[in-house]
Amino acid sequence: MSQSPSTSLTIRTQIAAEIGNFGRVVAAIGAAGAEVGGVDIVRSTKSAVTRDITVYVRDAAHGEAIVAALDALDGVEVQSTSDRVMLSHVGGKMTMQNRAALESRDDLSMAYTPGVARVCMAIQHDPERTWDLTIRGNSVAVITDGSSVVGQGDLGPLAALPSAEAKCMFLRELAGIDGFPLPLTVRDTDEISAVVSKIVSVFAGVHLTDMAAPRCFEVQKTLGALIDIPVLHDNQEGTSAALLAGLINSLGLAGKDLANATVLIAGLGPSGVATARLLVAAGVGQVLTCNRDGAVHAGKDYDEPELTWIAEHTNPDRRDGDARELLHGADAFIGLSVPGLIDAAAVKAMASDPIVFALAMPGPEITPAAAAGVATVFATGRPDLPNQINSALAFPGIWRGALDCRATRIDDGMVMAAARAIAETSAAAVAPDHVVPSVFNADLVPNVARAVRKAAEESGAARLTGAAA
Amino acid sequence: MSQSPSTSLTIRTQIAAEIGNFGRVVAAIGAAGAEVGGVDIVRSTKSAVTRDITVYVRDAAHGEAIVAALDALDGVEVQSTSDRVMLSHVGGKMTMQNRAALESRDDLSMAYTPGVARVCMAIQHDPERTWDLTIRGNSVAVITDGSSVVGQGDLGPLAALPSAEAKCMFLRELAGIDGFPLPLTVRDTDEISAVVSKIVSVFAGVHLTDMAAPRCFEVQKTLGALIDIPVLHDNQEGTSAALLAGLINSLGLAGKDLANATVLIAGLGPSGVATARLLVAAGVGQVLTCNRDGAVHAGKDYDEPELTWIAEHTNPDRRDGDARELLHGADAFIGLSVPGLIDAAAVKAMASDPIVFALAMPGPEITPAAAAGVATVFATGRPDLPNQINSALAFPGIWRGALDCRATRIDDGMVMAAARAIAETSAAAVAPDHVVPSVFNADLVPNVARAVRKAAEESGAARLTGAAA
Repeated sequence: MSQSPSTSLTIRTQIAAEIGNFGRVVAAIGAAGAEVGGVDIVRSTKSAVTRDITVYVRDAAHGEAIVAALDALDGVEVQSTSDRVMLSHVGGKMTMQNRAALESRDDLSMAYTPGVARVCMAIQHDPERTWDLTIRGNSVAVITDGSSVVGQGDLGPLAALPSAEAKCMFLRELAGIDGFPLPLTVRDTDEISAVVSKIVSVFAGVHLTDMAAPRCFEVQKTLGALIDIPVLHDNQEGTSAALLAGLINSLGLAGKDLANATVLIAGLGPSGVATARLLVAAGVGQVLTCNRDGAVHAGKDYDEPELTWIAEHTNPDRRDGDARELLHGADAFIGLSVPGLIDAAAVKAMASDPIVFALAMPGPEITPAAAAGVATVFATGRPDLPNQINSALAFPGIWRGALDCRATRIDDGMVMAAARAIAETSAAAVAPDHVVPSVFNADLVPNVARAVRKAAEESGAARLTGAAA
Repeated sequence: MSQSPSTSLTIRTQIAAEIGNFGRVVAAIGAAGAEVGGVDIVRSTKSAVTRDITVYVRDAAHGEAIVAALDALDGVEVQSTSDRVMLSHVGGKMTMQNRAALESRDDLSMAYTPGVARVCMAIQHDPERTWDLTIRGNSVAVITDGSSVVGQGDLGPLAALPSAEAKCMFLRELAGIDGFPLPLTVRDTDEISAVVSKIVSVFAGVHLTDMAAPRCFEVQKTLGALIDIPVLHDNQEGTSAALLAGLINSLGLAGKDLANATVLIAGLGPSGVATARLLVAAGVGQVLTCNRDGAVHAGKDYDEPELTWIAEHTNPDRRDGDARELLHGADAFIGLSVPGLIDAAAVKAMASDPIVFALAMPGPEITPAAAAGVATVFATGRPDLPNQINSALAFPGIWRGALDCRATRIDDGMVMAAARAIAETSAAAVAPDHVVPSVFNADLVPNVARAVRKAAEESGAARLTGAAA
């Protein structure tokens, strides 16, 4: 892992007030292979200056080595260290706020008794009024069982909470949506669906996250049948829409089109399966897939219904082999598997202008260094490299569109519309290092939301129709 | 019901620009028995002035009569009317906000991948860290099944949402707590407890509201046994603490004390039962209770375990009769029953300086007019009269105290401490029309929280100890 704000320390140092001392501190940090992110003076006396120095490090051990190196310098005393990421999480990442004042008896009598009784009665007479008279219309439950947390595996529901909170932050910051994180202490598929189905009165949608396969597929199906609001899984719909967007723009750069492209998907977890389905639905010429057992194709028996479906709908020539073999002649590689799966030689064996999306966690299927000069387009899931392809490109806009039309579900058409809108948002500026827009592109969510809403109206998923811009 | 902001209309009128026209409008509103709450000029031309006139009315029919009266005036045209309470609810009453910025790749890498992975791992290694690294430490689930909503009966979970949102508003405004409303579409006691027990990872407490007896008692018991965070029911702990506070101050005014007082509780729903328990625990001299079947006392058979307990612990003389009969010689009446239960004659038959708390919904057990000059202290649940006794006096502070010490439960000692702290908060200014503080008294929540935390430390309910001020 490279140096990044995600692994940074703030080191409080007291440095004797002699010319050159601070320079020696900065030099020591650089010599130890770290970068100075910022310096603040805490206090200054005649004899010493106390500074908070923020240092980007590789990992905890690297941080400890730097603290030791500074402490060993003459005239320098390390007083304390603090971990910026941990500090930034203290107290959690979100808060509930009131939308109206509650500061007087008049406020009370409007928001609570006796006024609220009329609002409650109005909803009892017409339950649809929950959409406009309560927070329901803009609320999404972010549900996880903690079985597959940010590339770290099964950490359990409590440990999944910081990640679920992050999804809520995306919803608020990017799409103005009120997400609330609800880690569940239950693992049985039917029980998850039953529990969630009983708490959704206040929500307009259910956002599944950090949930392992096959449970995520099963919950989406069983829960979707129990409730009349969408059930989206960010690792499925979100990631696959972002990948399809990147693929459309990358193929465009090479003058190729989807209908004639051969795309290999390596890794058949939730994102791999969802991407295979979406690429088939989008009309990609030839979709190939593989997992640790090799290529998936018809004629083999699979326990998982998802793999059976993929075997029936992809790889018409029943090609066999591992990722390296299947890459021969392919236009694009979509890696959702494990670090280091492929090498430069495999990329060289691809068709002209090879497209490599290496999204494995915690590191890509091929390093940026190995891909450089070989892949025409190279993308990863990392925020510190160009072309970050992440579900957050898609799900905020998909949810905004779904909520705007009070959608009952999120269907393939809506996800495809989202993918095309993401691609179009960066279309004017597409380049090998810019095949998808930034998640902070101000046009992104409005564009995706509009497209998703239109698709929902066309497919019948929208409760509200006719208002799409 | 009297005129109140809780039933107010804003009427947009276009009034011909002639001297005296606006005066006739105001006179017509007064003649129709309503009050003008405010006037705003929307636009003004040579020929006419458009004004938004906010009018406090008794009910919807009264509002319609006033609109018709204005429309009938020469030179006056009613252009539109809007309902302030309904408008104040549009979009719901709360929103989720991020506590930190999410505006750059650096922000992303701290709040989400790769930084968040370290936070998740830290919690996996030490689950107690959810208290400080996530929103859990300050979050309360506001749970309802909608079976008894703000005096309107069983409206169902969707219609209970505006009331649950109001409880969350109290928590935020008064105690800085993040409450989230979760109406449940389930009615079986064990199922409610099972569902809630599986979603509480993100919460430090469960706040039950608008739930009918006996389910509320059963859920509190079964759910409390399943989870290690407090389960509070505002109609029980909240209302009873507020009532005990008012009782302490009211008896003090008359120079009486709890240990020698006789108190009748009429109505044995959740608040009545909880109040009976609390008054017994607080050492009230003689507690009497009655419901529609008359006095509760030992020697009768009761189906409900709550009534059996009350029969065994109150009314030692096994007095019989209805509320009027039981009031003979009583020092205080606590009404949690039905409008119009008692009259002035019954109050006159009480001991000297009679105390009457008439909290029935939608109207008190005795009208303010009938009680005037007869009861020394008269209190209701209404915000537009002095002495509003409401659970909101107690639960924000109880929760603040419980969360500050990461309490595992809320026990009798904590509720009693809350009651005494509420009473003490207004002690310096106690008067017949001021036996409890305003919910907006800035000292109230800190005082209650400190007392509750201290009681929790003493009883062993506190996870954190030693930090109480």
